Amino acid sequence: MARKIKVGVAGYGVIGQRLADGVALQGDMELVGVADVAPTLSVRALKEKGMPYKLFTAAPDNRKALDDAGIPISGTLEDLVKQVDIMLDATSAGVGLKNKALYEKYGKKAVFQGGEKNSVADVFFHGYANYEAGLGADYLKLTSCNTTGLIRAVDCLDRVVGAEKVAITIIRRVADPGDYHRGLTNALQIDKAPSHQALDLMTIMPHVAATGILVHTPVTHGHIITVVLTPKKDISVEEAIEIFRAHPRIRVVSIDEGFLGNASLFRYARDLGNSRGDMYEIALWSDSVVKSGKDIMFAINIPQEAVVIPENIDAIRAAMEMQKTRDEGTAETNKYLGIGKWKITT
Amino acid sequence: MARKIKVGVAGYGVIGQRLADGVALQGDMELVGVADVAPTLSVRALKEKGMPYKLFTAAPDNRKALDDAGIPISGTLEDLVKQVDIMLDATSAGVGLKNKALYEKYGKKAVFQGGEKNSVADVFFHGYANYEAGLGADYLKLTSCNTTGLIRAVDCLDRVVGAEKVAITIIRRVADPGDYHRGLTNALQIDKAPSHQALDLMTIMPHVAATGILVHTPVTHGHIITVVLTPKKDISVEEAIEIFRAHPRIRVVSIDEGFLGNASLFRYARDLGNSRGDMYEIALWSDSVVKSGKDIMFAINIPQEAVVIPENIDAIRAAMEMQKTRDEGTAETNKYLGIGKWKITT
Amino acid sequence: MARKIKVGVAGYGVIGQRLADGVALQGDMELVGVADVAPTLSVRALKEKGMPYKLFTAAPDNRKALDDAGIPISGTLEDLVKQVDIMLDATSAGVGLKNKALYEKYGKKAVFQGGEKNSVADVFFHGYANYEAGLGADYLKLTSCNTTGLIRAVDCLDRVVGAEKVAITIIRRVADPGDYHRGLTNALQIDKAPSHQALDLMTIMPHVAATGILVHTPVTHGHIITVVLTPKKDISVEEAIEIFRAHPRIRVVSIDEGFLGNASLFRYARDLGNSRGDMYEIALWSDSVVKSGKDIMFAINIPQEAVVIPENIDAIRAAMEMQKTRDEGTAETNKYLGIGKWKITT
Amino acid sequence: MARKIKVGVAGYGVIGQRLADGVALQGDMELVGVADVAPTLSVRALKEKGMPYKLFTAAPDNRKALDDAGIPISGTLEDLVKQVDIMLDATSAGVGLKNKALYEKYGKKAVFQGGEKNSVADVFFHGYANYEAGLGADYLKLTSCNTTGLIRAVDCLDRVVGAEKVAITIIRRVADPGDYHRGLTNALQIDKAPSHQALDLMTIMPHVAATGILVHTPVTHGHIITVVLTPKKDISVEEAIEIFRAHPRIRVVSIDEGFLGNASLFRYARDLGNSRGDMYEIALWSDSVVKSGKDIMFAINIPQEAVVIPENIDAIRAAMEMQKTRDEGTAETNKYLGIGKWKITT
Repeated sequence: MARKIKVGVAGYGVIGQRLADGVALQGDMELVGVADVAPTLSVRALKEKGMPYKLFTAAPDNRKALDDAGIPISGTLEDLVKQVDIMLDATSAGVGLKNKALYEKYGKKAVFQGGEKNSVADVFFHGYANYEAGLGADYLKLTSCNTTGLIRAVDCLDRVVGAEKVAITIIRRVADPGDYHRGLTNALQIDKAPSHQALDLMTIMPHVAATGILVHTPVTHGHIITVVLTPKKDISVEEAIEIFRAHPRIRVVSIDEGFLGNASLFRYARDLGNSRGDMYEIALWSDSVVKSGKDIMFAINIPQEAVVIPENIDAIRAAMEMQKTRDEGTAETNKYLGIGKWKITT
Repeated sequence: MARKIKVGVAGYGVIGQRLADGVALQGDMELVGVADVAPTLSVRALKEKGMPYKLFTAAPDNRKALDDAGIPISGTLEDLVKQVDIMLDATSAGVGLKNKALYEKYGKKAVFQGGEKNSVADVFFHGYANYEAGLGADYLKLTSCNTTGLIRAVDCLDRVVGAEKVAITIIRRVADPGDYHRGLTNALQIDKAPSHQALDLMTIMPHVAATGILVHTPVTHGHIITVVLTPKKDISVEEAIEIFRAHPRIRVVSIDEGFLGNASLFRYARDLGNSRGDMYEIALWSDSVVKSGKDIMFAINIPQEAVVIPENIDAIRAAMEMQKTRDEGTAETNKYLGIGKWKITT
Repeated sequence: MARKIKVGVAGYGVIGQRLADGVALQGDMELVGVADVAPTLSVRALKEKGMPYKLFTAAPDNRKALDDAGIPISGTLEDLVKQVDIMLDATSAGVGLKNKALYEKYGKKAVFQGGEKNSVADVFFHGYANYEAGLGADYLKLTSCNTTGLIRAVDCLDRVVGAEKVAITIIRRVADPGDYHRGLTNALQIDKAPSHQALDLMTIMPHVAATGILVHTPVTHGHIITVVLTPKKDISVEEAIEIFRAHPRIRVVSIDEGFLGNASLFRYARDLGNSRGDMYEIALWSDSVVKSGKDIMFAINIPQEAVVIPENIDAIRAAMEMQKTRDEGTAETNKYLGIGKWKITT
Repeated sequence: MARKIKVGVAGYGVIGQRLADGVALQGDMELVGVADVAPTLSVRALKEKGMPYKLFTAAPDNRKALDDAGIPISGTLEDLVKQVDIMLDATSAGVGLKNKALYEKYGKKAVFQGGEKNSVADVFFHGYANYEAGLGADYLKLTSCNTTGLIRAVDCLDRVVGAEKVAITIIRRVADPGDYHRGLTNALQIDKAPSHQALDLMTIMPHVAATGILVHTPVTHGHIITVVLTPKKDISVEEAIEIFRAHPRIRVVSIDEGFLGNASLFRYARDLGNSRGDMYEIALWSDSVVKSGKDIMFAINIPQEAVVIPENIDAIRAAMEMQKTRDEGTAETNKYLGIGKWKITT
């Protein structure tokens, strides 16, 4: 067997922790360590768990705060970069661009998250929509959580019946559980249209026209997106549901089963015993799928904290050319993450 | 001048209070009184204000509770019905149907609210979309708050460029301010599609195809609806905005002015000094209007507590044949309610 | 009759608007005008209402933005200061201190709000607790909304039975209706103890020991404070309620009447037809009053947007020596604001 | 080694699931199975996980619904009861009393939850406060989540310095994550005082006087309780913190570490990798501890979903006389649940 690909994670926050866990599950990868700057709650939890991952400090000047909190440090971010084949950068927006100089200095590949500018990377990447574009690339940028989930659904239909255009409404969670630095109280907030997710979809899938409106809502567990999709070929509601059901990263659920909204899905993931109550799959409500003329309309749920993890792992596979095709690459990721084993009776 | 039309209001809750206030403002109507069943907060407030409206009891058996609270009673609902030309029934869903027997007994016309079944009425009514259908009718049912506001916008475009089909996403407030009997906490809730608002729109405007998805959100001030409308004739974003701006009951606003969402509109209405912080107009964000192909997409805000008041007044005008045309009827309503005097510089 | 006292208001935000309205209601005061810096929603609403108050610009350099929004300007803040006897400063925390130089330049008195540092003023003022301390003072600082309401209740008992010590728990609304710059979503947030409100109470009432804990909650309509008060003289629950009931600015309510929480009070104020749905009185739940040994415990509701208005007016009366005693001063304020006319049957 | 105690769980909801998981972790107990009535989300998750626990149907008439959902059934609740030594009953309030007849029929002991009436049981039980009262008892009722956590803290101080009286303010989460059948939106709701938790505390600790006020808040993750405790012996803030820190089921945290409120604790438990993001320990903020005279005031966080699990396990140990003393019983529970291994540097 080939040697394991060595991976480092910069930024041990909401996304970084989950990236580290996801990489650690891959049989053909090795998580060398994670880097962060301060004794955050996540870093304190890492310590309480007994340091299953090595921690490197991304801000050596802040080292005292980590030492004072009794957090063991294995070196600097630079030390980590030297030891890896590829970095997953999940730092705050803008920091990735700064870190890139370090990755370039040591000739290491890197995958950036949706918050960075597109110019940070050579390829704007989605595991299912354009895996092959990432093959061998040095710098990839992942789509954001909403766009990642949305493209799964649109790409899924597009490959079977062709998608001409989409109009999306994003009902966005405004904060993650535990966030105190942002929030909304008894308010919906609208962004200027079109939303960036519609524009990003067109960058990844240039043959589809897209527009959309985004509204922030005061909840923490998962976005809901409604999609009005004009297919090239007419398709029934039942056919659409079957196409969605065949996608490993789309979980078809229904109100009748008890999935009443985003909070049901979070509860279900917790009851499954998933780490942190996370869910890698988007959910699609079978009883939301309707038609108006040829247009098909449906609603999906985006579990914002974990949804991008599989596509990030796909990005490593593409960049390192571990698998040469979308089908092989995503299948390996799914296998190690345990995606696709479930089957809900509807 | 013709004698004033005598109006009674059954149900002095969220809608009933505002109907009473709206009728009281009409120079050609007389509010005979309001009816309710118990010493609710709204009834207690009526007493603290010195009983500007006569209160009739709709549940004579409960009279003791009203007496104990010191609320002066002017008679029973039946007494009220005898004295009026037409009743506005804003009781809880289902009660209107029961009350109808009383209205029929005395040969009085009545206007029911969206919560009642369509079969309670002869005409499903909207002041702007089908005023003439209500002329001389005995029993009319108003569209619900979302449908009323939605139809204003769709009808407004339809009359100029023709509307072929619409797909709507309703981001619904789950409770009114002060509600303790219903609520959501950190959850979005999805209803089975298509939403009744899409179906109701097709009943009022049968030449337009409509579908939609409704998601409840944990807020109290106003729904936001996104509309994807396929016009018969192509139209620019700017032209669409001008058409909306010309509608007296649509207030075109923008994020740049500071209208960031539903809560901004509620605050603005309070700062205007509007009674209860109410707003009769829907708001339409000029910076939400976008196009995808010929389709036009936009977002509107529905102030759920007050939005149906003008169309209810319109319904009285149609039923009593006070004005024979939509333009005359709605203009009189607008004049007395003070709608259309504002002008915001965009 | 003496000439009217000329008053200006700096800052036309949540508090400033209500101060202006409150001053305008006083028969013995004249509102010369209000000052603000930008075409905020409140300023736009002032324009839509037809400029009932003159607007002065507090940031002449920003004048273009006001002009572009079509807002008529009557001069600068300095022009306003010249024309008044006293300024009510309701600007953002810290700005008041800067403005003070202007007030001093023209020898004008001023009243600052709770957000300013104590050192900005000569007297830390509460209309009921230390009116006489403000007599003739040049610079007064008002207690914050929670402290103002809390002191009403504590002072009220203290004058009858003596208060030895209090321990308070403040369940704080995190944002005002319409706020988008701060908020909490599905989170309670605790501050380091003791809360400043407890410390402030001791500054105003140095003979009472006080401590307290503050927890922010994701709501917008009014704080709830629980108070554990150790009286010097034992007192029954019924006696305590009667003492509270006699205070003009305390409204004794009950769950049985339908006042289930802060949202009921906001709804009730809207149903009363109060401007903006405001309430000047704090509410005290009669069915929250309990005893543990000699200690008495009770819960009050603080309508954060309007509660400080009466005490601000009191401050003008004290500073300008319009009335020489607490009883006369607060009575005049109450008379013009319509406080004390209500009477709820319990 | 003695044979393992056989345990069944009735009701596989929020509490029942966690009881099952907790029992399964005990080296000296065997989880025979769980019982429920319908294919709820929790039961569907059990199936998706591959049925790690046997499911018995508590409503044989509903069996079709379970069969239709493909859920494997191992028998009826009665079958389960026959096989166990003791039942943990976590059914909806009132159902436990009905189930008791079944437990009595087979001479099996049972532990009921806080929602049942006290009369269902022989002993009202708390692992730390009155373990010995449960020794050999047939029917025990656990304190509710708030009371369980509160008594940990009060009993902890009481054993060292004596507690004379307490006045508590409960800032209560209104729903669990995933609840759609109850909720509050932008509202605080107050209950009539005194709260049942204060009364329950006096039942368990009759030598302490207690009163309290409860306010519901629109959040889902954990209650916060402030406690004003009058000790018999004066004690410093630092001494109190050290006493709390020594308690295995109290986690002393601080705002400076990043624990800003209930949501921080939920996030931390998720980041720890705890199943479902659960926490068995209450948290106590070291920077909330203050004094007023001799009284000591502090704030604790109650993780409502999991906090009662350890005391339920304690109840099995007492009822089955597995350990004869509080210290031995709670120590065994703690050992198997992994409680007390953590240590946060403050």
